[in-house]
Amino acid sequence: MRYRVLQEKMKENDICAALLSYHRDLFYYANTGQPCNLLIPGEGEPTLFVRRALDFVRSETHLSDIVPAAGLDAAVKKLKEKYPRGGKLGVAEEVIPARLYRRIKEAFSDFSLVNISPLVLQQRAVKEPGELELMRGAARLFEEAHRAVMENMKPGAREIEVSAEIYRCLRRAGGEPVNFHRRWDAISSHEGYLAGSKTSWQISGMAMTVTGKGTGPCLPWGASPEKLENGDVVVLDIGINYRGYHADISRTYVLGRANGKTKERYRAVQEIMEAALEQVRPGKEAQEIYYAALEKARQLKVDRYFQGWGEMQGNYIGHGIGIELDEPPVLMEGVKDPLKENMAVCIEPKLIVPEWGAVDREETLVVKNGPPEILSPVSGDLWETGQL
Amino acid sequence: MRYRVLQEKMKENDICAALLSYHRDLFYYANTGQPCNLLIPGEGEPTLFVRRALDFVRSETHLSDIVPAAGLDAAVKKLKEKYPRGGKLGVAEEVIPARLYRRIKEAFSDFSLVNISPLVLQQRAVKEPGELELMRGAARLFEEAHRAVMENMKPGAREIEVSAEIYRCLRRAGGEPVNFHRRWDAISSHEGYLAGSKTSWQISGMAMTVTGKGTGPCLPWGASPEKLENGDVVVLDIGINYRGYHADISRTYVLGRANGKTKERYRAVQEIMEAALEQVRPGKEAQEIYYAALEKARQLKVDRYFQGWGEMQGNYIGHGIGIELDEPPVLMEGVKDPLKENMAVCIEPKLIVPEWGAVDREETLVVKNGPPEILSPVSGDLWETGQL
Repeated sequence: MRYRVLQEKMKENDICAALLSYHRDLFYYANTGQPCNLLIPGEGEPTLFVRRALDFVRSETHLSDIVPAAGLDAAVKKLKEKYPRGGKLGVAEEVIPARLYRRIKEAFSDFSLVNISPLVLQQRAVKEPGELELMRGAARLFEEAHRAVMENMKPGAREIEVSAEIYRCLRRAGGEPVNFHRRWDAISSHEGYLAGSKTSWQISGMAMTVTGKGTGPCLPWGASPEKLENGDVVVLDIGINYRGYHADISRTYVLGRANGKTKERYRAVQEIMEAALEQVRPGKEAQEIYYAALEKARQLKVDRYFQGWGEMQGNYIGHGIGIELDEPPVLMEGVKDPLKENMAVCIEPKLIVPEWGAVDREETLVVKNGPPEILSPVSGDLWETGQL
Repeated sequence: MRYRVLQEKMKENDICAALLSYHRDLFYYANTGQPCNLLIPGEGEPTLFVRRALDFVRSETHLSDIVPAAGLDAAVKKLKEKYPRGGKLGVAEEVIPARLYRRIKEAFSDFSLVNISPLVLQQRAVKEPGELELMRGAARLFEEAHRAVMENMKPGAREIEVSAEIYRCLRRAGGEPVNFHRRWDAISSHEGYLAGSKTSWQISGMAMTVTGKGTGPCLPWGASPEKLENGDVVVLDIGINYRGYHADISRTYVLGRANGKTKERYRAVQEIMEAALEQVRPGKEAQEIYYAALEKARQLKVDRYFQGWGEMQGNYIGHGIGIELDEPPVLMEGVKDPLKENMAVCIEPKLIVPEWGAVDREETLVVKNGPPEILSPVSGDLWETGQL
């Protein structure tokens, strides 16, 4: 039972209980997608307080102590019985809204609130075999997205048209309609970010990556109505959600044949990828992967465009991934968390060149003793439609 | 300038400034989709503190006081200069996460935080002519979704296959890839909720409506892998986002020909819709629309299935809509807010019958002096594929 691992960590941190309301926490510990409050005491069995849809919860969860309760009163009563002298209560501070936090604080007035998320995310970072199987399933779906790009990327096609086909193919093959993000202000559908030469170098504020420019201020990232042209270098960066588990993969495509500059730049991306992959081993600090990649970019004299340009240049080379698209550890400057066996991480070197475009490759992989396992079945080479 | 309206409301409420970080607040007052902090003082010009992507912000916003600033310090300095004696600072308490709230509270320690959202939402509820034009555009896109259903709803087709086509058609026609929800734990793509007779009566906890059951606990609403069969009554309830403005529309389809029971139940939905529409006039309280609909449902003896069944029966008949799919006022029991001219609201009567299925019609409309303007160009009658 996953909650037992959290109970161990809570004990070490003198936290007497956790109250989990965030949908991904509920999915992870209770295997439900329904609105609930999950109370995990420091010892003993958790109680799932169901806010709505009791029938669904019963059909979903493996937990046995299930109590219908719209508000917080029943959870307060339960906790006070168990810990009459109060203590530290863990909640997910960075994801629950301020107003809910305040309601919890008032309801559990005998307890002091602490952020439980670091412990939850620590547990989640190392994947179980069943989780890795679902992530392999997500990565396999990338074949569908890849085929949709190769078949629909034609001169005159608009970026949004190709994106629409990507979504359609993924959804038919069993992909979920949305990705889950941890960041409160992030949002994305399942079509990913597709950007041709006109748009791929315009880095929107959503993330320090190839974002595309979208359709306007309401959602200025993702595919745009711009038309693709012969010679366009097209980047697809896509999060794929399969039964709640994500893969994050990026490939670079050329409409027609790649010219020398494109080949040279993609070769640099490949060399940086190799340098990074060599560092992906248990015990390595997250930041070491980034430094190895940066060092290679400098050697190749492409560091000016490495991971973006100007104020939008990022100091990262990847991130953890699982039931959310972006999970700790971020593989960036300053992060000393060591990699562990069976962590799932993404490595994503890219060059983004103003007024020219971008080349990008991202792999989702599993940390192993030895070289990591790359999950995508689609070759990481540069793809050209001219070769069809 | 929209911010001037907010400034008036702030003055009435003795709020000296607002700090807006939520993406929809930034879109509404600054016309940008980029991560920023917008400081609107009680008087004078707002300052847009840009966290990332300055070039994008410059190309998007109409505001002129733009300052690059990743953190909160610059905003604190600015506010202290203007209000050295402190005062009330408005933030969007129900949407920003607890940790950000705390950071703001610490940074603006001379100010007391209050929830600014009620004032923002009050302003947003009444739409400007340009906003209504975009909402009409969103509603027009429903023709694409409708055609996708009529053409792809065939015996043996899986719900997710029809949904995939809906997304594809909407996206190609200019729809955005996601809907915006205000609720922190709500999430949806642009394919809507499609559910046949097997799934439409299973009400998932996402909302008290026809939700479908999705693919499993990771996202248990929306289309499922279940196959449609001849005679199936299929409900599509879909939010459509066009340049940031939503329409929310539902139609009921029969695969083949409707039987007597289906026709009778849909007729009840139509009568309830008419009863509700007659109440949609400026000055009417939000709850009055619900009571009129409930009264009609009782007359027709369908109140047992009206707006759901059992513990999942809702006491509402609709909601406001705009840059978020669900905005105040909710048209439900206990809500006394009066309707005003040019408010946009959805009216959505439905019958959900356990083990049988559901019939549903939802219209997005504009409150007028006289009958409301219904935005969808697609007839609200029951649709049968048999008639093709």
